[in-house]
Amino acid sequence: MGFDANSLTYNEAGLVPAIAQDAETGEVLMMAWMNAEAVKRTLESGRVTYWSRSRQSFWIKGESSGHTQELVDFRVDCDQDCLLVTVKQIGPACHTNRRSCFYTAVRKGEEVELMAPMA
Amino acid sequence: MGFDANSLTYNEAGLVPAIAQDAETGEVLMMAWMNAEAVKRTLESGRVTYWSRSRQSFWIKGESSGHTQELVDFRVDCDQDCLLVTVKQIGPACHTNRRSCFYTAVRKGEEVELMAPMA
Repeated sequence: MGFDANSLTYNEAGLVPAIAQDAETGEVLMMAWMNAEAVKRTLESGRVTYWSRSRQSFWIKGESSGHTQELVDFRVDCDQDCLLVTVKQIGPACHTNRRSCFYTAVRKGEEVELMAPMA
Repeated sequence: MGFDANSLTYNEAGLVPAIAQDAETGEVLMMAWMNAEAVKRTLESGRVTYWSRSRQSFWIKGESSGHTQELVDFRVDCDQDCLLVTVKQIGPACHTNRRSCFYTAVRKGEEVELMAPMA
């Protein structure tokens, strides 16, 4: 069946959450947001493109940092209101220079840092 | 540092997205929402507990279906506005009886079903 980016269920701001996962290791790297146009651009260009809520503009991941996300596979969930992109991530995905944004665990009530910034 | 569930950044509805990942295989299973109380209950009970937006009630995953999610590790992202729970998932995570909610890929403009419902 043909895919139509407009058929996804977007929130009141016109956005859908997109989870980025390393296609090779399975590591969950980050979560950000896409609007319908970002979905189309991601699929057409093969470069993962989000909508930046803080800057209110398209955000081609890695455009300024060089830490690009090349799309490997694009998936939609059962309710069509969440996306999973598996990617080839160059360098760190997180703005703190860590590989993943999920570098803090909560264990026995305490925050534990799981990874250091990349060199 | 001690973790305080109230210190997370919740949206205007008081919710934060939570990604569930199979702790063993790395498969991304689903995304749902938690409020501060669901975060506390998940950490205290070790059974992943969401907030159901449709039913407006706590949703202990698997409570009625038996398809429970036992918490393995609880992670917070850099902006404290998204959670990643790694879990031991019993049976299917998806209400369609599939292992993961992300069973539909978009490839060359077409939707492709990647997995069948579990027996």
